[in-house]
Amino acid sequence: MIRVGIVGGTGYTGVELLRLLASHEQVEVAAITSRAECGRRLDDLFPNLRGLYDLVFSEPHADSLAACDVVFFATPHNVAMNTVPELLAAGTRVVDLSADYRLRDAANWSSWYGEDHASPDLLGEAVYGLPERNRQQIKEARLVACPGCYPTAVQLGFMPLLEEGLIETDSLIASAASGVSGAGRQAKIDNLLSEASDSFKAYAVQGHRHLPEIEQGLGDMDGGAVNVTFVPHLLPMVRGIHATLFARLGKPVADLQALFEARYADEPFVDVLPAEVYPQTRTVKGANRCQLAVAVPQDRGTVVVMSVIDNLVKGASGQAVQNMNIMFDLPEDTGLRQVGLLP
Amino acid sequence: MIRVGIVGGTGYTGVELLRLLASHEQVEVAAITSRAECGRRLDDLFPNLRGLYDLVFSEPHADSLAACDVVFFATPHNVAMNTVPELLAAGTRVVDLSADYRLRDAANWSSWYGEDHASPDLLGEAVYGLPERNRQQIKEARLVACPGCYPTAVQLGFMPLLEEGLIETDSLIASAASGVSGAGRQAKIDNLLSEASDSFKAYAVQGHRHLPEIEQGLGDMDGGAVNVTFVPHLLPMVRGIHATLFARLGKPVADLQALFEARYADEPFVDVLPAEVYPQTRTVKGANRCQLAVAVPQDRGTVVVMSVIDNLVKGASGQAVQNMNIMFDLPEDTGLRQVGLLP
Amino acid sequence: MIRVGIVGGTGYTGVELLRLLASHEQVEVAAITSRAECGRRLDDLFPNLRGLYDLVFSEPHADSLAACDVVFFATPHNVAMNTVPELLAAGTRVVDLSADYRLRDAANWSSWYGEDHASPDLLGEAVYGLPERNRQQIKEARLVACPGCYPTAVQLGFMPLLEEGLIETDSLIASAASGVSGAGRQAKIDNLLSEASDSFKAYAVQGHRHLPEIEQGLGDMDGGAVNVTFVPHLLPMVRGIHATLFARLGKPVADLQALFEARYADEPFVDVLPAEVYPQTRTVKGANRCQLAVAVPQDRGTVVVMSVIDNLVKGASGQAVQNMNIMFDLPEDTGLRQVGLLP
Amino acid sequence: MIRVGIVGGTGYTGVELLRLLASHEQVEVAAITSRAECGRRLDDLFPNLRGLYDLVFSEPHADSLAACDVVFFATPHNVAMNTVPELLAAGTRVVDLSADYRLRDAANWSSWYGEDHASPDLLGEAVYGLPERNRQQIKEARLVACPGCYPTAVQLGFMPLLEEGLIETDSLIASAASGVSGAGRQAKIDNLLSEASDSFKAYAVQGHRHLPEIEQGLGDMDGGAVNVTFVPHLLPMVRGIHATLFARLGKPVADLQALFEARYADEPFVDVLPAEVYPQTRTVKGANRCQLAVAVPQDRGTVVVMSVIDNLVKGASGQAVQNMNIMFDLPEDTGLRQVGLLP
Repeated sequence: MIRVGIVGGTGYTGVELLRLLASHEQVEVAAITSRAECGRRLDDLFPNLRGLYDLVFSEPHADSLAACDVVFFATPHNVAMNTVPELLAAGTRVVDLSADYRLRDAANWSSWYGEDHASPDLLGEAVYGLPERNRQQIKEARLVACPGCYPTAVQLGFMPLLEEGLIETDSLIASAASGVSGAGRQAKIDNLLSEASDSFKAYAVQGHRHLPEIEQGLGDMDGGAVNVTFVPHLLPMVRGIHATLFARLGKPVADLQALFEARYADEPFVDVLPAEVYPQTRTVKGANRCQLAVAVPQDRGTVVVMSVIDNLVKGASGQAVQNMNIMFDLPEDTGLRQVGLLP
Repeated sequence: MIRVGIVGGTGYTGVELLRLLASHEQVEVAAITSRAECGRRLDDLFPNLRGLYDLVFSEPHADSLAACDVVFFATPHNVAMNTVPELLAAGTRVVDLSADYRLRDAANWSSWYGEDHASPDLLGEAVYGLPERNRQQIKEARLVACPGCYPTAVQLGFMPLLEEGLIETDSLIASAASGVSGAGRQAKIDNLLSEASDSFKAYAVQGHRHLPEIEQGLGDMDGGAVNVTFVPHLLPMVRGIHATLFARLGKPVADLQALFEARYADEPFVDVLPAEVYPQTRTVKGANRCQLAVAVPQDRGTVVVMSVIDNLVKGASGQAVQNMNIMFDLPEDTGLRQVGLLP
Repeated sequence: MIRVGIVGGTGYTGVELLRLLASHEQVEVAAITSRAECGRRLDDLFPNLRGLYDLVFSEPHADSLAACDVVFFATPHNVAMNTVPELLAAGTRVVDLSADYRLRDAANWSSWYGEDHASPDLLGEAVYGLPERNRQQIKEARLVACPGCYPTAVQLGFMPLLEEGLIETDSLIASAASGVSGAGRQAKIDNLLSEASDSFKAYAVQGHRHLPEIEQGLGDMDGGAVNVTFVPHLLPMVRGIHATLFARLGKPVADLQALFEARYADEPFVDVLPAEVYPQTRTVKGANRCQLAVAVPQDRGTVVVMSVIDNLVKGASGQAVQNMNIMFDLPEDTGLRQVGLLP
Repeated sequence: MIRVGIVGGTGYTGVELLRLLASHEQVEVAAITSRAECGRRLDDLFPNLRGLYDLVFSEPHADSLAACDVVFFATPHNVAMNTVPELLAAGTRVVDLSADYRLRDAANWSSWYGEDHASPDLLGEAVYGLPERNRQQIKEARLVACPGCYPTAVQLGFMPLLEEGLIETDSLIASAASGVSGAGRQAKIDNLLSEASDSFKAYAVQGHRHLPEIEQGLGDMDGGAVNVTFVPHLLPMVRGIHATLFARLGKPVADLQALFEARYADEPFVDVLPAEVYPQTRTVKGANRCQLAVAVPQDRGTVVVMSVIDNLVKGASGQAVQNMNIMFDLPEDTGLRQVGLLP
C-alpha cells in the first residue's frame, strides 16, 4: 500500500481526491491536514465520505507528512513551495495541485503571483504533469506540478494542431468557461448562489494567472512562442470546464478528425468524439476524462476545437491521481474508473 | 458472470443502471432493448458510457431476453406486466423498476393506473424490493418489484417509528420534493429547463400514484392501516429526493436518535446522521444511500424525520442492483460503492 | 415627493427596494447609507441600477436620515432598534424590514435573538405590517414592522382558516422552502453556489427565528394560542418562497375554495388560484404578489394550503413599499405594478 | 390607444411581449392568437399575467388582425411571410420577431431555411429593426424585421469598431452563449432541465441560422463583406445572452473605451460599462438593455468585446416594443422602463 498524505484537505480538490482515492485499491490515506479544521472529523465536514475514512484533520507537521510515500498539495498557491523542499529531502514524492511549480521561470511566476518564489531551484526539476505530453518524465519525477484546470482543457485541445504545425500561432484564441467550483471553497460574495447562479460573465479579461501556463505549454508543443488571447467565463453551475478554441489554419489539412483520433488513440483519458458531435460538460462530470471535437465551420480556414473536462477531476484531483499512478508504476486508471454522472 | 438484460434502456433509470453495472465485476450486460432507438449505439445516445459498452439497442424480443439470467425493466408502467410471465416461465428472474408489481391488490392498482392489470396472478408472488424490510424474501424471489423513489425515502424514514408503534397513524404527513429526473427522459413542456428551473411547486396534491404504495408499505410496518397526506414537489435540479415527514408521537420516547441508529446499524446503505445534523440531497448524489435525521422540534410531541436519496440510485437503479445482488448471493455492495459527488 | 432614506442599502432587500422605488412616481430617494461601502456609487455595486440613481453610499448619520419623511431599515436585526427612537422623535416615520419590532414581547424577542432589546417601549406601538390583516393600523403608524418572508407566506395561507375557526390549532404544520437570497448578501460558505446549488435540505429544524413571529401572528387570527411545527428548507435557486401548510379540519366545511376567494377578493396583492391549480414560485418572481391554493387531498380531513411569494418582494421590500403607500395615503400599488418574470 | 394584435402568443416571446405591454400606457392588446390554445384564457397558460388581461386565445383570422394598428408576429419562421402581405394591404403595420424578413436576399434565406420564401418582394421593403443603426428608416416602416437575439448582441458589440474601420474583417470571431429560453417553449428532450441544466456545450458549430443575419448586418456597418466564425453555446439557465467577440485591430487606436462611450452616448438602451468592468447577464435580466465592455488583453492587438442582453427583451420582445414606439412616434422607452432583476 502506498501511504498518502494530503495537505489542505478542506477544499474541493481535497474532498475530490478523497472521493477518488476511496476506490483506489493500492492506497492508504495516512494523513490529512488542515489548520482551520484541525481536530474535526473528515466526514463531519464532508458527509458524502461517511463510512469510508476514519480520519481527523491534523496540523500540517512535516514529519508526519514525510512518513508518507507521496504527498498531495491541494492548497492555494504559496503553500507547497515552502514545504516541498523538506519533503523531497526526506524522500517523499510530491504531487502539487497548486500553481507553485507550473512555470519554469521564477521571474515569470513572480510577475503573476506578486511575490518571490520560495524554492525557485526546484522549478527546473518539477515535471509538468500533463501525462498526454510528459508521461515518461512523470514516471521518474520526485515532484510533479499538476496543470491548472483551464490549461488542461486548452492544451489538450490545441496539442494535435500545434505538434503538427498546422496553425498560425501569433493569435490563438481560447474562450473558456468554468463552473464555480473552480473558485474553491472560500467565502466570497461573488461566488454565492445568489450572485453566480442564473448568470454568465467573463472575468480576468486583462490577464488570468493561467495565461502564462497555457502559453508555456503550447509553446513547448509548437517549438516556438505562441500568443494566446484567453478569456475565462464563469458558468452558473458547479463542475465542468468547456474551452472553445479558435485558430487560423496555416495550410490545408486533409482530415483533422483523423488527426485528432490518431493523436489520442492510446490515451485512456482523452476521448475524441465522432465528427459533428460536440462535447457537453455533463458527460464527463465526475470522470477523469477530456472529450474533444474539432470542426472548420463553413470551411473558411478557421479551426474550432471544443474541449471539456470536469475541472475537479481531469482538471485537478483526477489528473493528480493519474500522475501518482504513473509515478508508482500502477495501471494508469487505478481509482479512476468513475463514469460520468449523466443526467 | 451473470447475464443481464435491460428493457427500456433509453431513460434515466436505464442509463443509470448501465453506469452502475459498468463497475459490477460479476455482471455482463447481454442485451439492451428499445423500440425507438433500435439499431443505435448505446454510447451515441449516452456519451458518458463511451468505451464501456460495445452495445447497440435492439428490439425487445422475448427470446434474447429469456437467454439472460436476470432482466431489469427500466420502463414506464404497463410494459413489464405484459412480458414478465413469459420470462419467468423461461426461468429468467426479473427486477422490475416500474410500478407494475408494487401493489398487491389488482383492483387498487387499476384504480390508480386506469387499466386492468395484465398479469394479476403474479402480484401475490412479487416481492417488494425494499431490502431493509424484505431481505429474506428477496433472496428467493423470481420477481422483485423495486420501490418507487418517493416510497423508498418515505418508508425508510417512517420505518423505525412504525415498527415500534410510536406514532399516531391516522394522519401522517409526507412533504417530499424531487429533482426533475424523476419525471423521466420525456419531451414535456413542464420539464423544460425554462419551465422547471428557478422555481418550486407542489403537484399531484389530490393524489399521486405513489400514495397507495406508500400506504401499503407503511401499513405492513405498522400492522394496521395508515393514513398519509402526501404532497410531492418539484425541485429545480436534476437528482435527489428529500422527504420531510411529520407525525404525532403517541407516547413519550426516550431517545429517537438511538432508536434510528439501532434500527439501521447493520444496513450498508442507510446512514443515520449524528443528532442535529440534517441531510442534504447532494451528499448522496450518485450514491446508493439513504441519509436520515430525526428531531422533535421544541419538544412539542411532533416528530420530524428528514430522509434523502438519489432518486435514480437508491430510489431506482441502485436499489435494483442491490436487489439483484441479494437474489444472486453476491456481496450486497457489489457495483454500488460509488461515493456521493460533492460538490 | 416623499423623501425616502434607506439604511443598509447593500443587501438584497436594499437593492430590491431601489428597483421598486425607481418606478414609484411619488418618491425621491434622498439618502442611502452603508458603513462598508461609504463613498461608493450605488450603481457601481448594482449595475442593474445604472442610469436610475445618481447616489453614493453615505455614513448612517441620524440627522440626514431625520430629514427624510420615511426611513426604511434594510438591515440585519439589531440595527433599527438603536436608531429608530431618535428618528421617531424627529418626526420621521419608519418602515423596518428587520426583525427588531416584529414581536410584541421583549422577553420573547430576547430569548430568540440572544440579547436585550434596545427600545422595548416601542414594541407596543409598532404595527405589524401585514396589510391584509392590519391595514387600518398601518395608516396611522409611525413605526411599521415588516413581516419576515416565511411569516408572510405562512400567515396569508392560514389566515382564512384561522379567522373562521376551522382548523385544530394544536399541531399546525408549515413545511416551507426558500431561495438562497433569503440568506442575504453575506460571504458564507454554506451559501456558495458550489454548496447550495443542485441540492435541497432542511435547516433550523429545532427552532427558526421566524417561529415565534408566525405563532404570534396566527394566534392573533385565531384568538388563542396556536402550536406550529415549522421546518424551513433551502432551495437551489435565488428568489421565491413556497409554504406547504397542513392542518386537521375541526369541522366539515362546504367550500374552502370559495372561502379563500372571498377572504382575498379585495386584496390587490393576494391571488387565490382556481381550484386544482397549484402555485409556482416563478409566477410571482419580481412581483409583489402572494398566490394561494387550497386542497383537501383524498377528502380525508387534512387541509393543505400552498402559498408562494417572492421573498424579496411580498416577503420584504415590496411589502415595505406597500406599507409606505398605506402610511402616506397613496394608491396601494404605486411602484408595485411589476409583473412576474416568466420564464 | 394603439390597437395591438399578437400572433403566436403561447411562446416565450409572446408572454414577454404581454408582460412589457402590460405597463405600456398607449397600447391596448386587442387580439392574441394561437391555433393550439384557441379558447383558453391567456392567464390560465401564464399565471403571472393574472389580473392584467381579460383575453382568450383566438384563431389567427386575418380580419381581426387587420383591424389592429400593429401586429406582432411572435412565431417560428414560416408563419409571418404567409400573412404579412394581407395585413400590409389592409393598412396594418407589422413588427415581425421571426426570421422571415431579416435577410434581404431570398436565395440566401432559402439556403438557410430550406424552403422558398412566400413573399420575397417584401424583403426589400422590410426594415431591419436594430434602432441603434436604422432608427430613421424604422420610423416610416410598414414592416419591421426584428433582429435575432444573437445578432443583436453581436452587432451592437462590433458596431463601433466596424463603423470606424478599425478591425480586420476577414476573420471575426463571435463566441456566444444563450440561456435555454432562446430555444422556445417547445417539448424537446434536449431542452429538458435534466438535459440542459448543470452543463454547457457548443451547438450548430458548422453553421447557425443567425450567421447570415450577422454577416449581413456587420457587412452593412463595414461597407464590405465580413467573415465571421460564430459558435453559439447553450447556458444552463433561462434568460440571457453573452457574446464574447474577438478581432484583430487593423491599426493602433488611442482609446476604445471613449469610442464606445461616444457611439452609444445617446442610446437609451445601450450602456457602455466603465473600463475594466465586465457585463453579467443577470444585470440586464428582464430589462431592455445591452451592456457592453471593450478590452485589449495584454495590449497584444486583439480586441475583445463583451456584450450582454436578455434574449427575450432586447433580443426579442423588448426590441419589438422599442421598434413599435419608434414607428408610432412615442417616447422610445414607453413600456420599457423595467429594471434588471438582481439578484
